[in-house]
Amino acid sequence: MANLHSESGGDLLLLVKAKMSSQVKEDCLGWAARDSSGFLSPYKFPRRFADPFDSGYKPQYRAVGDDDVLLTITHCGVCYADVLWSRNKFGDAMYPMVPGHEIAGVVKEVGSNVHRFKVGQHVGVGTYVNSCKECDNCIADREVHCEKGAISTFNSVDVDGTVTKGGYASYYVVHERYCFRIPDGYPLALAAPLLCAGITVYSPMMRHKMNQPGKSLGVIGLGGLGHLAVKFGKAFGLNVIVFSTSMSKKEEALNLLGADKFVVSSDEQQMKALANSLDFIIDTASGDHPFDPYMALLKTAGTLVLVGAPSEVKLSPISLIRGMKSISGSGSGGLKEEQEMLDFCAAHKIYPEIELISIQYINEALERLVKRDVKYRFVIDIEKSLK
Amino acid sequence: MANLHSESGGDLLLLVKAKMSSQVKEDCLGWAARDSSGFLSPYKFPRRFADPFDSGYKPQYRAVGDDDVLLTITHCGVCYADVLWSRNKFGDAMYPMVPGHEIAGVVKEVGSNVHRFKVGQHVGVGTYVNSCKECDNCIADREVHCEKGAISTFNSVDVDGTVTKGGYASYYVVHERYCFRIPDGYPLALAAPLLCAGITVYSPMMRHKMNQPGKSLGVIGLGGLGHLAVKFGKAFGLNVIVFSTSMSKKEEALNLLGADKFVVSSDEQQMKALANSLDFIIDTASGDHPFDPYMALLKTAGTLVLVGAPSEVKLSPISLIRGMKSISGSGSGGLKEEQEMLDFCAAHKIYPEIELISIQYINEALERLVKRDVKYRFVIDIEKSLK
Repeated sequence: MANLHSESGGDLLLLVKAKMSSQVKEDCLGWAARDSSGFLSPYKFPRRFADPFDSGYKPQYRAVGDDDVLLTITHCGVCYADVLWSRNKFGDAMYPMVPGHEIAGVVKEVGSNVHRFKVGQHVGVGTYVNSCKECDNCIADREVHCEKGAISTFNSVDVDGTVTKGGYASYYVVHERYCFRIPDGYPLALAAPLLCAGITVYSPMMRHKMNQPGKSLGVIGLGGLGHLAVKFGKAFGLNVIVFSTSMSKKEEALNLLGADKFVVSSDEQQMKALANSLDFIIDTASGDHPFDPYMALLKTAGTLVLVGAPSEVKLSPISLIRGMKSISGSGSGGLKEEQEMLDFCAAHKIYPEIELISIQYINEALERLVKRDVKYRFVIDIEKSLK
Repeated sequence: MANLHSESGGDLLLLVKAKMSSQVKEDCLGWAARDSSGFLSPYKFPRRFADPFDSGYKPQYRAVGDDDVLLTITHCGVCYADVLWSRNKFGDAMYPMVPGHEIAGVVKEVGSNVHRFKVGQHVGVGTYVNSCKECDNCIADREVHCEKGAISTFNSVDVDGTVTKGGYASYYVVHERYCFRIPDGYPLALAAPLLCAGITVYSPMMRHKMNQPGKSLGVIGLGGLGHLAVKFGKAFGLNVIVFSTSMSKKEEALNLLGADKFVVSSDEQQMKALANSLDFIIDTASGDHPFDPYMALLKTAGTLVLVGAPSEVKLSPISLIRGMKSISGSGSGGLKEEQEMLDFCAAHKIYPEIELISIQYINEALERLVKRDVKYRFVIDIEKSLK
């Protein structure tokens, strides 16, 4: 310490950086994309630096802060966002990038201030891992809309200045506020998809009071998000109608997922018969598609909520004005409702349909995801395959 | 009657038609468009036929039914819809077409069942004049969204099979349910624009709880609808920001209408400074314009309501998903809230800004309306100029 104090400012910084670097433990094994090809391969990296100046100029490497939980990752769901970001579709990719924001695992270590979690507990991490905690949105339990910007689970600059890296990795360190309890007995592999796909459809359904039995719900697209919207819809007692571009998923939509009706969206006659009949539509399609035909299916004052990622939204003003209809967007949800959703799934035995894969299969899985060839969510068995 | 019964069916119909025709009183003087040029000129026509079979095969002409009110029109507002329909922009024009759905006047005659109105009272007629009265929407006071289709004040097929003709005319006959009381002392010329422009902005403001003081309202466009949105906003105690494509209306927006701020929408710096600051935006612009820059101004869960008629709505899904924002539509309103709006305007001394014109000036006025050269609503002085 005495030595450090006697250095000049510039020299001090250099020294600190050198010391930090020597103390960095690259002990987290993940799979990362290195460029916009999005091809993933093994990659070792450290989790979290503490601020080198936060304890009397003593540089340090400290993976688990006082409020942090370190979890060993057992499973990570594969979200379409993983494809989009790892291939730099939004132009903001920071490589090497470790994707994954549907993380389930077991608590390995907790910081000294952590009281909600204990070593050995089953926990999850979703799409964001930090926020300012002080703004109106953070206070109102909608931290995902933090006014200073929620910090994403991967490809985001964290409070310590490092770039977050996701769940295709051996462990994660997260502030306890952004960590969820996975209810006892709920399989970790099945919990993973709830942490993005699940909350993304659950949140707008709750916000638009679509948990009231007897209402009618349209679900566009039957992938990771869509199939969970059907399951939530049935658990809420809704009349659920699935819209798809092909007949291929009809049998499963009706018999496996329990939808009440399956409509191929190009069938004009069936579409016409449903005019003004739906209270709410969840649009999970990420491919470009017309919106006017679906708006026509909504009742007066009905809402279509977009949770997918088409390239644009284009529709006729008449589709909104006639019947005072709305098109709205939603992504993820607040922490409180995300925990409620997990508890709801456990209580009502709602389980995602998954294909469990090894990390070595991930590049093929991402390709299949682009082709929508998955029933209905890939989940990486990190525990068994990442070595 | 005996003679009629002895005729064959076909002959009977011909006879009825001939008798009807001879009894039709073409006693209503209006100005009508004859083709898609939309050019208006004088035109005489009858109002309402009774069903020739509804009283024992006795064909009859009966202008005022038992539930009807006949009003002498004193004033009619000029709405952009008058331009759109008279020029057949929606492809459904039925000529000759008499436009006008902001009608103010004086009761001249009432049917035997009419109890709400008396001869001599000041009344108004808005954008629709009939609906099924039985569907969920009619029962829920949102008759404009009648499931069988509300009947428009002009260019709509009425229950008696005739085509409705609007308020650029000497009188109107309307079922009393679709007739409004104009409060004592409220000038008829100023009441006219409330019956479309007024209710069209008032209704979505009330629905979205924008009558709560302290909230912030954006108003895009400062024409007939926009200037009333500003006036309602100030009466509700809101912080009102006007967005316009040019500086030309700045002075009046701030000093005449009382807006708190005036922003030229091309000024990126001013737009950026307003990011995430508005609770609600009313978009009254009928010209095509981008939506993403305005969505960025809304707070989390904010709504932009479209009440104008651009050719399309096009925006990025991110504009909806980030901040779970909505774009919604609205047109006119229910009968109950329309009466409330009229009473509110009288109680709070909210008066539209108008240019009073003669019917002889109407073609020039419509041209000026297309060029947005009006402050802020043309109102035809029917009483003084239509002879």
